[in-house]
Amino acid sequence: MDLPPLRPGGPKRMRRFLSLADFERAQILDLLALAQKLQDKPEPRALRGKVLGLLFLNPSLRTLASFQSGMAHLGGNSFVITPGQGTWGLETRNNVVMDGTAAEHIREALPVLASYCDALGVRAFAEGKNLLEDLSEPLFSTIDQLCDKPLINLESAMNHPAQALCDWRTLDELKIASGGKFVLTWVYHPKALPLAVPSATLHMAAMRGMEVVVLRPEGFALPPTVMGKARVAAKSSGGAVTETSDRTLALKGAHVLYAKEWGSTTHYGAPEADAKLRAELQDWCVRENWFANAFADAKLMHCLPVRRNVAVADEVLDGPRAVVQRQAFNRLVVQMAILHRMLA
Amino acid sequence: MDLPPLRPGGPKRMRRFLSLADFERAQILDLLALAQKLQDKPEPRALRGKVLGLLFLNPSLRTLASFQSGMAHLGGNSFVITPGQGTWGLETRNNVVMDGTAAEHIREALPVLASYCDALGVRAFAEGKNLLEDLSEPLFSTIDQLCDKPLINLESAMNHPAQALCDWRTLDELKIASGGKFVLTWVYHPKALPLAVPSATLHMAAMRGMEVVVLRPEGFALPPTVMGKARVAAKSSGGAVTETSDRTLALKGAHVLYAKEWGSTTHYGAPEADAKLRAELQDWCVRENWFANAFADAKLMHCLPVRRNVAVADEVLDGPRAVVQRQAFNRLVVQMAILHRMLA
Amino acid sequence: MDLPPLRPGGPKRMRRFLSLADFERAQILDLLALAQKLQDKPEPRALRGKVLGLLFLNPSLRTLASFQSGMAHLGGNSFVITPGQGTWGLETRNNVVMDGTAAEHIREALPVLASYCDALGVRAFAEGKNLLEDLSEPLFSTIDQLCDKPLINLESAMNHPAQALCDWRTLDELKIASGGKFVLTWVYHPKALPLAVPSATLHMAAMRGMEVVVLRPEGFALPPTVMGKARVAAKSSGGAVTETSDRTLALKGAHVLYAKEWGSTTHYGAPEADAKLRAELQDWCVRENWFANAFADAKLMHCLPVRRNVAVADEVLDGPRAVVQRQAFNRLVVQMAILHRMLA
Repeated sequence: MDLPPLRPGGPKRMRRFLSLADFERAQILDLLALAQKLQDKPEPRALRGKVLGLLFLNPSLRTLASFQSGMAHLGGNSFVITPGQGTWGLETRNNVVMDGTAAEHIREALPVLASYCDALGVRAFAEGKNLLEDLSEPLFSTIDQLCDKPLINLESAMNHPAQALCDWRTLDELKIASGGKFVLTWVYHPKALPLAVPSATLHMAAMRGMEVVVLRPEGFALPPTVMGKARVAAKSSGGAVTETSDRTLALKGAHVLYAKEWGSTTHYGAPEADAKLRAELQDWCVRENWFANAFADAKLMHCLPVRRNVAVADEVLDGPRAVVQRQAFNRLVVQMAILHRMLA
Repeated sequence: MDLPPLRPGGPKRMRRFLSLADFERAQILDLLALAQKLQDKPEPRALRGKVLGLLFLNPSLRTLASFQSGMAHLGGNSFVITPGQGTWGLETRNNVVMDGTAAEHIREALPVLASYCDALGVRAFAEGKNLLEDLSEPLFSTIDQLCDKPLINLESAMNHPAQALCDWRTLDELKIASGGKFVLTWVYHPKALPLAVPSATLHMAAMRGMEVVVLRPEGFALPPTVMGKARVAAKSSGGAVTETSDRTLALKGAHVLYAKEWGSTTHYGAPEADAKLRAELQDWCVRENWFANAFADAKLMHCLPVRRNVAVADEVLDGPRAVVQRQAFNRLVVQMAILHRMLA
Repeated sequence: MDLPPLRPGGPKRMRRFLSLADFERAQILDLLALAQKLQDKPEPRALRGKVLGLLFLNPSLRTLASFQSGMAHLGGNSFVITPGQGTWGLETRNNVVMDGTAAEHIREALPVLASYCDALGVRAFAEGKNLLEDLSEPLFSTIDQLCDKPLINLESAMNHPAQALCDWRTLDELKIASGGKFVLTWVYHPKALPLAVPSATLHMAAMRGMEVVVLRPEGFALPPTVMGKARVAAKSSGGAVTETSDRTLALKGAHVLYAKEWGSTTHYGAPEADAKLRAELQDWCVRENWFANAFADAKLMHCLPVRRNVAVADEVLDGPRAVVQRQAFNRLVVQMAILHRMLA
């Protein structure tokens, strides 16, 4: 853990931002306070001469734009490397004979890129073949070991801490009580998407002390280790974590509905079985009538990108419940705090 | 209208740069004067801490490089998002069930990107299926509504105002009289290209007060609404707008030949009929002998990219008539004025 | 030649960085000294307001990231244009009828991009069809003529001077004597790669005064003109250049083994014949036993990207001999000196 020791003498520099679970609750609150402080009083010279490297092994819109903008707003600069788009593919497996399409191994590329910048952000999604393996974050662990500069997780196999942090700030802004009811619901998508955001979101809400309900159809339960870790976090913050496939029960009295698409965990790595299972679940598209028994002013959250009328209906996204754009804007806000804590 | 009210008290900040037709002639002259002023006396700190977002739904060379360079020369910074190149495809149609390839709707992406920057530039070409629809700029109207930050049109269905402004400046630099003869000619290209540049060029020359002749083969007349709008602009500036398919007549006494490729308007959205029509028109490649009866020192303009020996022959592009590189350089010059008026 | 005249009055600005062979040895030492000076005492404001344009006709990782980072560390900025990735393809042949896929000619694109920046870097690999033609650098000669701004070769048909310069610095840092034994060895790769790096490396080691041995199988001898030029350089610096296909002989007493993949010169431009020849040469993968008779502390160098267990085995890349990451980091270091000498 590298966040400040919460004592006099000022904060230590942060070296890693890989998971909210790595931090004490007080350290998260401290980062959120810094985010607010930088909003109130911008520091356009704080990172003068500093360079952020951004390595995207998967596509991005918000993450790329908000990190580049955040560095610029703090007076720094950034560069972007996207294998497959102007850069050759990178091999990530160890001990292989590299006679395929990948021209370079991440064991060379990662430390080299780290040596060109003051902090490095990396996006590397799950392989999606073996759940136990993805749960152990083999690729991001390697990246962590290879990087001797401050490192930011821009979404790994099982985590997306910058998203989780911006969502926490959004809940605070909306004045949703720490003990409020937070429903994380599975929604339909044509393909099996990774578990990174639902896992990070669940843990964030648990750490914040909320009454968390994971609402998902059979076959889409989050992995027991993810649920278990969240329950421990909930316990220490006064919250609770339960799960159900009963939509009416879950939504009753909810303050927040957080919609997210993810792949079947019972058919993990088996796209055909997953497709067959999800084909029957196209009514898992959030509509206004989902909120019938929710708190009157209940909000709809989503990390974006969202497929309209597939995962969430127009009527909800275009209505007053949707706070998705505020979430996205808060990416910029909290990431400036992360960068500041790492590099200022 | 957001350009300065031409009275004491100083210019208002510009919020939109979408079409030259949105501005009074005096406002254009004011922008061009600012461009010259920034050339004479650079302001490398004017946009310190400011960030320009650039969203390209279509390819670019000059626009991307010149806007990034312009921000940097003014002390600001920029980021680039290119759906299909490191970012997923964006849906632009309203009220659709997004079960295709596009992962995100522009209704989310646009305001999110706007929230990360101080001004946003967007390129979004015509769909090219229905002329009346493209003439109404449905996509850029949506973008305009979705963007609560200063917005720059980097080429829309029917407009390319930054190109038009740099061309105006180039004409001024060449000391071509306001009443000079300006021939906009259709030239050959293997495919039907959009009407954005010819429409913007025509309107610019009309606003500048020139004697404008649109030279095009049968089937390639510019839309009546485009011609009509230009005629109104010409009237108020003392110019004139006519059209013909007679090359000799058109070029006689011309001071400027502006070459541009565009699609058939009689076969708009019908690629096969367009292809058949244009197949006979490969002699519409500008050669030196086109200038036989033109003003001796007549210039050749083109917005670039240009296909050599297809649209314009080497002998012209490599000779003293061609001012295409000066036009391109002026993109940088006038865009710095636009950015300064928006953000300084 | 534009490097400093080595006399009082201060250095002239450098206008071209195209080949180490264009410089006197003393000028190279001067650049390396500047690189060290900028490492010891950073100048984060030296290039304030300056813009570097980067044009990549071929993929990149190190070059893109290190030049962008180098500009940022010196207070400047940069933009990247990558034809085929957000920008259309560029035609490079002269006098052609451009009715194919390329939408723009480099004769327009290059001077336009140069007009947007204070210095331009260009990567343009060999065409790989005709050896004599590639040896004459037809494309980069054209680029040189078209560019009226300071120009940096980011790897051309036969050269990669920034790589050669960083390798020189790496040898200095390792305290490898100027007269040390430097073995440039061919290594296996599934495809025929260009001759740019081996040619540049050979010349660098010769200029540095080393005892250079080119180790390569039959059919992969470097072109006589490349060898001859290196021999001349070696003569004037007190070094020597020989070649062999005898690995034991070559490695005996070696201080450095520089591994590089390249295409057959006897079957240049004939991929099938090349493939047949190299198919038998898969044991040309550097392993620890290659160093049996080398100097005990001999180093392994490679410009990267390297295919693990194809060109160099894990056991070498992960062991103490490999200095490939230091080489890559030195790209940043020496390029800052190049940029400083061009633009400060």
